[in-house]
Amino acid sequence: MRTNTVKEKWARGEMTYGGWLSIPSSFSAEVMAHQGLDWVCIDMQHGLVDYQVALTMLQAIGSTPTIPFVRVPWNEFGIIGKVLDAGAMGVIIPMVNSAEEAKAAVAACRYFPDGSRSFGPTRAAYYAGSDYFRGANQEIACIPMIETGQAVDRLDEILSVPGVDAVYVGPADLSITLGLPPGMNNGEPFESARVKIAKACAAHGVTAGIHANAQLAAKHGEAGYRMVTITSDAGSIAIQAQADLKVAKGTADGTKPVYG
Amino acid sequence: MRTNTVKEKWARGEMTYGGWLSIPSSFSAEVMAHQGLDWVCIDMQHGLVDYQVALTMLQAIGSTPTIPFVRVPWNEFGIIGKVLDAGAMGVIIPMVNSAEEAKAAVAACRYFPDGSRSFGPTRAAYYAGSDYFRGANQEIACIPMIETGQAVDRLDEILSVPGVDAVYVGPADLSITLGLPPGMNNGEPFESARVKIAKACAAHGVTAGIHANAQLAAKHGEAGYRMVTITSDAGSIAIQAQADLKVAKGTADGTKPVYG
Amino acid sequence: MRTNTVKEKWARGEMTYGGWLSIPSSFSAEVMAHQGLDWVCIDMQHGLVDYQVALTMLQAIGSTPTIPFVRVPWNEFGIIGKVLDAGAMGVIIPMVNSAEEAKAAVAACRYFPDGSRSFGPTRAAYYAGSDYFRGANQEIACIPMIETGQAVDRLDEILSVPGVDAVYVGPADLSITLGLPPGMNNGEPFESARVKIAKACAAHGVTAGIHANAQLAAKHGEAGYRMVTITSDAGSIAIQAQADLKVAKGTADGTKPVYG
Amino acid sequence: MRTNTVKEKWARGEMTYGGWLSIPSSFSAEVMAHQGLDWVCIDMQHGLVDYQVALTMLQAIGSTPTIPFVRVPWNEFGIIGKVLDAGAMGVIIPMVNSAEEAKAAVAACRYFPDGSRSFGPTRAAYYAGSDYFRGANQEIACIPMIETGQAVDRLDEILSVPGVDAVYVGPADLSITLGLPPGMNNGEPFESARVKIAKACAAHGVTAGIHANAQLAAKHGEAGYRMVTITSDAGSIAIQAQADLKVAKGTADGTKPVYG
Amino acid sequence: MRTNTVKEKWARGEMTYGGWLSIPSSFSAEVMAHQGLDWVCIDMQHGLVDYQVALTMLQAIGSTPTIPFVRVPWNEFGIIGKVLDAGAMGVIIPMVNSAEEAKAAVAACRYFPDGSRSFGPTRAAYYAGSDYFRGANQEIACIPMIETGQAVDRLDEILSVPGVDAVYVGPADLSITLGLPPGMNNGEPFESARVKIAKACAAHGVTAGIHANAQLAAKHGEAGYRMVTITSDAGSIAIQAQADLKVAKGTADGTKPVYG
Amino acid sequence: MRTNTVKEKWARGEMTYGGWLSIPSSFSAEVMAHQGLDWVCIDMQHGLVDYQVALTMLQAIGSTPTIPFVRVPWNEFGIIGKVLDAGAMGVIIPMVNSAEEAKAAVAACRYFPDGSRSFGPTRAAYYAGSDYFRGANQEIACIPMIETGQAVDRLDEILSVPGVDAVYVGPADLSITLGLPPGMNNGEPFESARVKIAKACAAHGVTAGIHANAQLAAKHGEAGYRMVTITSDAGSIAIQAQADLKVAKGTADGTKPVYG
Repeated sequence: MRTNTVKEKWARGEMTYGGWLSIPSSFSAEVMAHQGLDWVCIDMQHGLVDYQVALTMLQAIGSTPTIPFVRVPWNEFGIIGKVLDAGAMGVIIPMVNSAEEAKAAVAACRYFPDGSRSFGPTRAAYYAGSDYFRGANQEIACIPMIETGQAVDRLDEILSVPGVDAVYVGPADLSITLGLPPGMNNGEPFESARVKIAKACAAHGVTAGIHANAQLAAKHGEAGYRMVTITSDAGSIAIQAQADLKVAKGTADGTKPVYG
Repeated sequence: MRTNTVKEKWARGEMTYGGWLSIPSSFSAEVMAHQGLDWVCIDMQHGLVDYQVALTMLQAIGSTPTIPFVRVPWNEFGIIGKVLDAGAMGVIIPMVNSAEEAKAAVAACRYFPDGSRSFGPTRAAYYAGSDYFRGANQEIACIPMIETGQAVDRLDEILSVPGVDAVYVGPADLSITLGLPPGMNNGEPFESARVKIAKACAAHGVTAGIHANAQLAAKHGEAGYRMVTITSDAGSIAIQAQADLKVAKGTADGTKPVYG
Repeated sequence: MRTNTVKEKWARGEMTYGGWLSIPSSFSAEVMAHQGLDWVCIDMQHGLVDYQVALTMLQAIGSTPTIPFVRVPWNEFGIIGKVLDAGAMGVIIPMVNSAEEAKAAVAACRYFPDGSRSFGPTRAAYYAGSDYFRGANQEIACIPMIETGQAVDRLDEILSVPGVDAVYVGPADLSITLGLPPGMNNGEPFESARVKIAKACAAHGVTAGIHANAQLAAKHGEAGYRMVTITSDAGSIAIQAQADLKVAKGTADGTKPVYG
Repeated sequence: MRTNTVKEKWARGEMTYGGWLSIPSSFSAEVMAHQGLDWVCIDMQHGLVDYQVALTMLQAIGSTPTIPFVRVPWNEFGIIGKVLDAGAMGVIIPMVNSAEEAKAAVAACRYFPDGSRSFGPTRAAYYAGSDYFRGANQEIACIPMIETGQAVDRLDEILSVPGVDAVYVGPADLSITLGLPPGMNNGEPFESARVKIAKACAAHGVTAGIHANAQLAAKHGEAGYRMVTITSDAGSIAIQAQADLKVAKGTADGTKPVYG
Repeated sequence: MRTNTVKEKWARGEMTYGGWLSIPSSFSAEVMAHQGLDWVCIDMQHGLVDYQVALTMLQAIGSTPTIPFVRVPWNEFGIIGKVLDAGAMGVIIPMVNSAEEAKAAVAACRYFPDGSRSFGPTRAAYYAGSDYFRGANQEIACIPMIETGQAVDRLDEILSVPGVDAVYVGPADLSITLGLPPGMNNGEPFESARVKIAKACAAHGVTAGIHANAQLAAKHGEAGYRMVTITSDAGSIAIQAQADLKVAKGTADGTKPVYG
Repeated sequence: MRTNTVKEKWARGEMTYGGWLSIPSSFSAEVMAHQGLDWVCIDMQHGLVDYQVALTMLQAIGSTPTIPFVRVPWNEFGIIGKVLDAGAMGVIIPMVNSAEEAKAAVAACRYFPDGSRSFGPTRAAYYAGSDYFRGANQEIACIPMIETGQAVDRLDEILSVPGVDAVYVGPADLSITLGLPPGMNNGEPFESARVKIAKACAAHGVTAGIHANAQLAAKHGEAGYRMVTITSDAGSIAIQAQADLKVAKGTADGTKPVYG
């Protein structure tokens, strides 16, 4: 079966950088997958993507060595199975707030006896290999999100669930549930939670991941995070267009051209 | 009928900046249309977009004041009519190399007696107003491309065709047909052609446009161009991801973080 | 943030009329949204619409002042979040039969501390404004359906749940569960339930809504309903085609033309 | 091969009524095809429909006895072949202004030796029968549009082209090219052209068709037209919503309800 | 209402053969539905199909007498209702491991008082008849899957749930949960479970179904199975291409052609 | 740039086998591309495929070493450019009946000075390499179809056009225009034409190709054909289902099982 090179890096304690996909298009996914990132994540929760387009995105990513993850809309057995059968090498599951919810997430990602995933890797067997059944429980990454104050309180029980490969911090929801505005880089009590999660992960042998941007990557790396989102499709279009308008209008350095 | 604010600016000799859409998605189009550009162009020629998705892109752009143009795959009557009926406020037509071809382009964009466009603005009447028939010949922009050495040789005859509002220079094809590699900023003989086109446009009262980027915008503006593409959806994703990877890895300023 | 003009009218006790969208197409949605209705509802339960097309419908509606609601397939956290992030200004939730189910519906619609909606208004922030987080809990309408005898029995507990803005009566299911055939205007015990719901809503300060048609609107208005569906896309095609065939064949007034 | 029941009626001089499909959706097409019309026409010219959705519309119509026609975007060989292979039983071709153009239209609709259509009825053989090749030249309707003053001037040469089964009048374009505003029921010189076309058709044994509405059907029937469009999908949604709003608000009969 | 001819055959104890649809396309579905099978099943669980495409597949199948089933992704109320409203005549529900889960499946398939399905057969009423409400509880097939060791242990309680028309054995998952590799024709303890299920079904008057292939059909028929999948869309493409390559290369019978 | 391994084989005089794709789905394309064929062809002429889906099919094929060709609907500049920009490594062009038409086909496939293809390999540069411009004129296969009696008469002039890499025989159309029923293996005069084409190709150094099946491959190989279609997606589903039904019912070997 295809090796999950991201899990390999995590096993070696190496950093992995990811790109976020909110645009429902196989072409934007293909472009992102060609940029040298370790992984990309198709966001079916807050992204504008549903399964049928996600499938074509997975196919487009499949022509590159970049590892495809999918964030599912919710911790629901059916959709987790569907995206894995379509070729996702990992699943990010929102709002996991208890060991019970983490166990449900793992169960959806693993074949018996490690879980109760139903067998039928209709595309995955083409993408990842005909020996998919033997390798899947090892290669597929199960990545619950830690994004509420409640989840932080229950970190130990969640991280103790066998089969959790990594957790992914959602800074916006974590901030909100801690009484802060949504943000990626809030102060206390967000900052303490951010550090606490990384430490707990280290203690449990679970990889710590976080939704971020390129500027925050080094800070997160220092704290122990090894799965960091640094770029996004829709965000790049907006950021770059704003920057390009400034350059074109000369306002990037204060000089405005006059025409006509 | 909805005013084509881009044509208004052209009439006043003002610069207009555009964003290029190659990703077949209504969401990336919506994001781009919210960035403050004067116009966006859905590229049905080299972009990965066909009519059915272009329609949803036009609908998404329709909630903003940004003016939507469409580059059609070819100078073909049927598709020009279809994109106009779907709400495009202007059409960029590839590879117009003669007055005859320019006349065909104009005919497809204008109702009788200015042309022979067929009437049926099924969506356009919702988007641009129920008085569409009265205003369309005035508000719709017909924009042939000048992108071959042959077209440059025949500039006067092409620019003399009534109904040509602007021309749009395709630097890659123009470079190739002048014996240069495809590029946006080649030297001679590209440079002379670039200047010659702008001057001929000024002489004929036709707006000069060009495919470019933000860095080249000022240079084109000085030459007389008033329709300049400065940003693109797919390009931004690639550029930004590359930049973000450098920032994240610390290679933007030469410092590479070490983890693990 | 964009004002929910329908909630404004409800606050003033004014009637609001809605159009129903069962056809999975951004164009039929755009046509309906241009007719002067207060709101339209994309029906993802019994309509033929799934998320990916619903997104394009929301985008098309977004160019008009008409307020977009979505009826989700089921009281499920994931899909409620997805349609809100895509720009729905209200959600109609089927088969809410208890306070517990109503609380789940509210939780999915509201950010902490009013609920547990996950933050990521990827399109909604473009459509409704960049200050979406501050306004969403106020502007988004949470509208559980009352459509079983059981729900009528538990009206008080359901209407007492904080965050329920309106309830929407499903006459077909309510009729069936009361032992009647599916219908919009059945006699007893449907009639008593219909009146009882409106009165209970008035007592709890919750807006009463109902699936209906234009002919029943006045009757419902008199009973206190302020959210009434009066037209539908697929229904109109069928009704109008039938009527047109009668007119064309002369059978509308008894005169049949004979040709040939 | 499946009998084209519309051509059968035309052969008997009987009227046939049609429904117009501008919405790109297989469901609206299916609804329309169930209303008892003789034929429906998928409009790929001014409708918002491209081939891939048209295919699903043809499939949905295929479960009813209603005969599916397609109006192609232009008199272009490739798309005429594609819609016929997808199962259209007739093709309406825009802007046929000469015998030469009519011959091109016929050639695209007929196999050798009657034309030069390429063989490959990939879906049509399932829909219309495995003996499709033997029957197609007989059953498929080739229907050029007469919609310019020039075409009216050349009626005899156009109607003399073998293989033209019917012509379809486009009143809007015909009006425009005659110097009138676009309309379905203009006065002179539109009226004379309308009558002239029907008479010329009768003289040449070609069926006369016209884009209309239910109210105009009898008038057209009296003039000799036997193919009349009387209803449309998008139009019905708009018309019915307007009517429903009036009924609901009580303004249909002058009585406006007051609530709140 | 349209008669479910598969349920008729089951009532007479007759065998029914099915085709499996994993490709998300209305055309492959239409091709399969024309081959003379009793039923086809659109697989929304392990197939690459989501609702919006499944709708067009149901429409395409609807032009044939073949009965359409849908396997839903999971035992979830919303999606079961959606596929039934779209015209499925039966639903296969994965991983039903208890009477409680079987009751939930039945409830989603049946109108009150037999269940709690919500009324709104928007397409089904066109496909299956306007008297759909009266016939649906009888004609719709509810088919839970038996595919775990746990389910086999609880066969009697599951088969005792009123409204279960058939059960469908998933050999791969059943094998896995019995400690075997995924397979369609494993030895013990799979073989005993396979026989036990058929016998229990016979005892409860429930039809026994199984995922299989043509070669296994006779064996299953002898054991009492009356619902057997014998062919699949994606599988056929792969199998036939492999066979065709062998034939073309002459390796089918050991003779390899040499060219060039 | 990615090497066109099919052209390499042709240069060595080796046989290449192809699979035909008529189903509009990226998944069926992916399945076919994994079967070990030299090339697959997406059929946009008689297949049920339009550009937007063809793009996703090209992306799915792109994860395999199989070379993707596209048959365009017609010899039209716009669509040839679009499929090449989307990553097709070769184009099959229908109904090329003269040197002039062959030159038009070549012009659409080659950059200046070999042709007049417009530059913008938006996806192709990702799929085939960033040096696409330098390699494309060499690697892209231009493959006109020879499928009429007229084309056979003009073989020498067509095969003399520089840039024609191969020709592809359409046996059905060739048969029809020679007065035979459509078929792949007709007698005279089809047989003579078939042999004549292969010989003329050999004389001109052009590869001979033909639409066929596995059974005919050896015969065509002996005649000199080196590009032979041997399998197809939709055909395989139908053939295999028919075969499976016979096996299941025991009629493959004359034994029919009796159940019930």
